[in-house]
Formats: sequence, structure tokens, C-alpha cells
Amino acid sequence: MLVDGVAHRTIWLSDDGESVEIIDQTKLPHEFEIVRLSTVEDAAHAIRTMQVRGAPLIGASAGYGVALAMRVDSSDAGLDNACKTLIATRPTAVNLRWALDEMQALLQPLPAGDRRDAAYRRAAEICDEDVGINEGIGSHGVELIRAAAEGKGGGPVNILTHCNAGWLATVDWGTATAPIYRAHDAGIPVHVWVDETRPRNQGASLTAWELGHHGVPHTVIVDNVGGHLMQHGQVDLCITGTDRTTGAGDVCNKIGTYLKALAAHDNNVPFYIGLPSPTIDWTLGDGVAEIPIEERDPKEVSEMTGRTADGRIETVEITPQGSAVANYAFDVTPARLVTGLITERGIAAASRDGLLGLFPERG
Amino acid sequence: MLVDGVAHRTIWLSDDGESVEIIDQTKLPHEFEIVRLSTVEDAAHAIRTMQVRGAPLIGASAGYGVALAMRVDSSDAGLDNACKTLIATRPTAVNLRWALDEMQALLQPLPAGDRRDAAYRRAAEICDEDVGINEGIGSHGVELIRAAAEGKGGGPVNILTHCNAGWLATVDWGTATAPIYRAHDAGIPVHVWVDETRPRNQGASLTAWELGHHGVPHTVIVDNVGGHLMQHGQVDLCITGTDRTTGAGDVCNKIGTYLKALAAHDNNVPFYIGLPSPTIDWTLGDGVAEIPIEERDPKEVSEMTGRTADGRIETVEITPQGSAVANYAFDVTPARLVTGLITERGIAAASRDGLLGLFPERG
Repeated sequence: MLVDGVAHRTIWLSDDGESVEIIDQTKLPHEFEIVRLSTVEDAAHAIRTMQVRGAPLIGASAGYGVALAMRVDSSDAGLDNACKTLIATRPTAVNLRWALDEMQALLQPLPAGDRRDAAYRRAAEICDEDVGINEGIGSHGVELIRAAAEGKGGGPVNILTHCNAGWLATVDWGTATAPIYRAHDAGIPVHVWVDETRPRNQGASLTAWELGHHGVPHTVIVDNVGGHLMQHGQVDLCITGTDRTTGAGDVCNKIGTYLKALAAHDNNVPFYIGLPSPTIDWTLGDGVAEIPIEERDPKEVSEMTGRTADGRIETVEITPQGSAVANYAFDVTPARLVTGLITERGIAAASRDGLLGLFPERG
Repeated sequence: MLVDGVAHRTIWLSDDGESVEIIDQTKLPHEFEIVRLSTVEDAAHAIRTMQVRGAPLIGASAGYGVALAMRVDSSDAGLDNACKTLIATRPTAVNLRWALDEMQALLQPLPAGDRRDAAYRRAAEICDEDVGINEGIGSHGVELIRAAAEGKGGGPVNILTHCNAGWLATVDWGTATAPIYRAHDAGIPVHVWVDETRPRNQGASLTAWELGHHGVPHTVIVDNVGGHLMQHGQVDLCITGTDRTTGAGDVCNKIGTYLKALAAHDNNVPFYIGLPSPTIDWTLGDGVAEIPIEERDPKEVSEMTGRTADGRIETVEITPQGSAVANYAFDVTPARLVTGLITERGIAAASRDGLLGLFPERG
């Protein structure tokens, strides 16, 4: 998508054909800084410090991390070390493990001399596959927005989203945002209500930034506001992403998604999920009961980082000293509150039957 | 309630019997600073800059502001000027207008020489009346907590609250917090989930501070978390305050209250309101349709103030430059989502019949 008028992905091969470049997402929205990764250690550092984040982008970064390692040492030991270095950065990230398994399965059987080129090719494919999935979500989801625009007969379609399921979390397009970018690019008037998304503020800092750079009209609101807007007809549909969706259609996503789904249900506002099929966990049924919810560092709640009036980046503490803080990172929205799942193959009802209709090979 | 082990109200007469002292609430939770008000201008400044806030406390401060004016000039012109100075500080605050009307109606007919003492007496009464109402809410509400404790048979009663309807918003006890303080003081084990309450963070900065100083166990959470906690049985009841409740029981309160009420309803968690009867607007029925919602300065959303690692108080900008921001201050929770209204006369169903049962004189 566009940054300062120039099309970008979140990760790409440098002009030298060997290094890899990324956007340092820890600096957003205050600074746009491109970082060059030349070694597997650079890639590991980028993943560990969340310069790159979002499951698909972490996977792509790991793929390129292995390629960078193969430049220097394409022996069996070199491959093993690269994978060990990378998996240690965020050991619980499912896409990280998946990408490393892919790379290892491909490279291990090859002669050491062939591994470098094969690694670069597969890393590029991982990126393109993610873009393809998101383009698919976009092409199906845009029809919902088009229909909403026709139903309204004038004025922008108001779409509420939560957290950042935007192009910054993927290689391009994003999941929840792919239909929005497609609509905007097609001239369908859209306006996005961007939930701030406490505690890490990915909505206010990332989604607002990327929508703004691509020229999509949007307004940042605190997480408390969506219900009020829906009561007053100011939201036509909701689209969020998901970290993990059960085979029965229960959606695990950033904490607070469930509250917006309740409000949508109470006000007859359609609630959709941009769902890349690799994040479906076919082994799970009841998401509320079965998905463990990560608790993260309380400092994400008690501290806030931003730009001072004189341009410095500063971190401030906002809770009383001595008050306990809890930081639950995700919640589960039961399938009964979800209008539909926008996958790369089409839009499914949030149910096992709905998903199996599009993915019969899982039956 | 207690601060550093000493019982405080939010406003009190100084040892000199003439000046008035307040807690500078703009400094909380980072500094506890008492400010002395010696003139009506001091009182106006305190209200305007929100050193005092919360409807009951604003009313009490205005009452004492008139008394401070009467020390200097108790003529008709002096009384008029005092009221004009004070009403201009927050022209839309209902309790401010009410308190000034009270003072003027009492003082106008009196000889100028009698006004000073009468003003101090009435200001003290306004404070005591507020404390009495909140004590009433506490004595009725504590029975809900006691029953929940008995129903659980062990472990603390987990109560979720939103915003600050605590003693800092009133003269003492608070509205939503009165039952909680009563329970804690009576030895009933309670634990409070304190919603951060973006954008002004009154939960994280004020409610957490006052609960902590009184020794009430509590945990600060972001506004997104409550639904997840309720899905997992970690909330036994919710109690919030209200800015304005319709005669039919629709509750206007801090933005985001509606989302918590939806989650409570979806998970069979009782949702109560601490409701001082002066905030019932008997002329209104449908709160969602009839109550206009104030939009406030977007900077409340886009900026955040806190304490830096080296102890300075700093304000930082947290949204991208160029992104629009909307700041709706309140929302309306329909009566159908409210389990009961805890008033100073008892607990009413959230309906016109329910309220008229306790306030038959309004029928």
C-alpha cells in the first residue's frame, strides 16, 4: 500500500538482491524508518524487538532470515543454527514455526551449494502467498462494502475496525483492511472508525497511520466509543482480523473484539472477520473454553509512549504506584455473534458447516 | 475515605474557619496536593481547571465559592458577581447551576450582614447532604455485595467498575464506590476490576488511587478486558455511576458503560448503577434517543499525560499527525441491560414503575 505516495510492502529484497529491507514498526506512527537486514542476526533482532510483527509478516521475515543465513553458511550446521536463532525470538508464534519448518523441509534435502538460491526463492514465495491470500480476502470482502454503499445510496460506508489487521501486519493488503483498500481504490466511498486498541494502541498508531498514508478517510476513537456509534447508526459494518479461529467459527482476536461484536449484534450491524485460512485451527471447537488467553507485561497498560511537544519520544507511567495491573491480550468472540468469515475462497457462515463449505478437504 | 491512613473529604473548611481546602485532582495519581481556596476567584479557578470535578463536588465547591465571596462583599452586587463568576466556569454543569440557585434563593432575601454566616452554613449542608445520599447508596448496595459473598462461599467478591464514581467525584464515599467501601470496611472481602476509562483515564488515575489509599484490593485493566473476564466467571457484579438517568431507567454514563452492560447481560452478571436521586431526569424517557452526547476536545484522545522514569510529568502525542480523532464523552445504557438502580432510598428496578416505587412523589 502507499506510503508518501509510493507503493510498499512490509518486507522486500534490497537493490543488491541479497539484503532485505523492512519498515521499523516500533517507530510508527511517529517516524517512518526503513531498516536493512543483512544477516540472520539482523532478522532475529527485527522479530524479537517487534520491528516486524503480525503473524504473516513474522513468517515472511523468518523465511528471509534463513536465506540471509544461507549466504554465509549453507552447511547443515548453518541451517540448523539459523532456525534455532530465529525460533528463539518469539517461541510461541505459530507462523514463525511454520515458516521455519517450510524452509527446513525444503533446504535440508538439497546439496549445500543449492540452498542459498532455493531459500531466497521460497522466502519470496511465502511473501507472495500471503499477498495472494489477502488479495482473495479483499476481492470477496469488497462486495460487502459495495452492497452496503448501494444500500445506503450516498455517503461513505462507515466501517469499524479493531487493532491492526492491516497491511503492516502482513506482507501487503492486510486481512481486515484488504476489502477496505479494495473499496477505496475502486472509488467506493469508505470511512473507517479506528479503535485505539489499548493497551498497545495498534489501532491508533498503526491502522490510522497506514490508512492515512493510503488516503483512506478515517477517525481514531477510543475503544469505549463503538457501542455508542452503533446505537446511532454511524457504523454500517465491522471488520476485524483474527489470530486464531476455531473450526466451529469462534474467533480469537485482540482483547475487546468481543465487546464490539456484542454491540454490533445488539444494533443489527454486520460483524465480519477477515480470515486467512492458515489461521483456522480445525482441531478446536469451543473457543471460549479451549483457547488459552495470553497475559502480557503489565507495563503495556501502565506505561504509554508518544511524542512530546518538542518532538522527543518519551515513555510515561499512567497508573498509581502500587496498583496492580492485569493485561489480557486476546478474547474470544463466539460464532453466534459473527455475521461471516471473509476467507480467500469466499465468505463463510461462522460455523463448521460454513467453513467446510469452502474448505471441503478439511471435512 | 482514607489517604495515607487519614480520613479525608474532597472539600473541607480550613482551620481558620473561613478558607476552604480541596485536593488538586489534576495532580492525581502522581501527586497528592492540597490547595487552599481563599476567594471566589480561587473557587472558580478550581472548578474551571478541574482541580475539583464530579457533579456533587462541583456543586459543593460552588456553594463554598459563594461563601468565600460573602466574606469580602455581601451586598446584592457582591452576590450577583459571585454567582456570575462561578456559573461561567462550567456553564453546562447541572449541579453547579443547582448549587448557585440554592445559595441565591437563600441569601437574596437576607440582610447583607447575615449573608456570610448563612452562606457558610448552607455550603456545609450541601456537603453533608451529598455525604448522606452516598451513605444511603452504600447501605443499600452493601447488601448486594454481602449476598454475593455468601453465594460464593469464599474468595473475594469481584466487582467491575468503570470511570470514577468514587469519593473523589463526590464529597465522600462516592456513588458506585459507596457499597464497595462499606463492604470493605465491614470485612466482606472484595476485589475491584478498575476499567482504565479512556480517554481521560479516570479509572486508572482516580479510582485506582482512591481504592489503593483506602486499602481496597483492586486491579487496573484496559477498557477492552471486562468482557473476557465476564466470559470466564471473574466478575461477580458490576457497579458504575451515572451522570443522568431517565425516569424510565436508561442510564447515561461515561462512554463505554454500554459495552460493559452488554457483556454483563451476555454472561448473566448483575449490572447495577449507584444512582443519587438528584441525577434522575424525570422528564426523559428514551435515553438513547433523547440525551445529547457531548463531544469533547480530541486532544483528550490524542495526548496522554504521565510520569517519566525520572519523575517529571510529561504529555505525549500518541496518534499519527493528520489522523482525525473523535471524542464522545458519554453513552446511554438502555434500562433493559440494567439489573437495578441503587438509590439512597433503596434498590429499584430500572423502569419508571421501579423508580416511582421509591419516589412516589414524582408520580
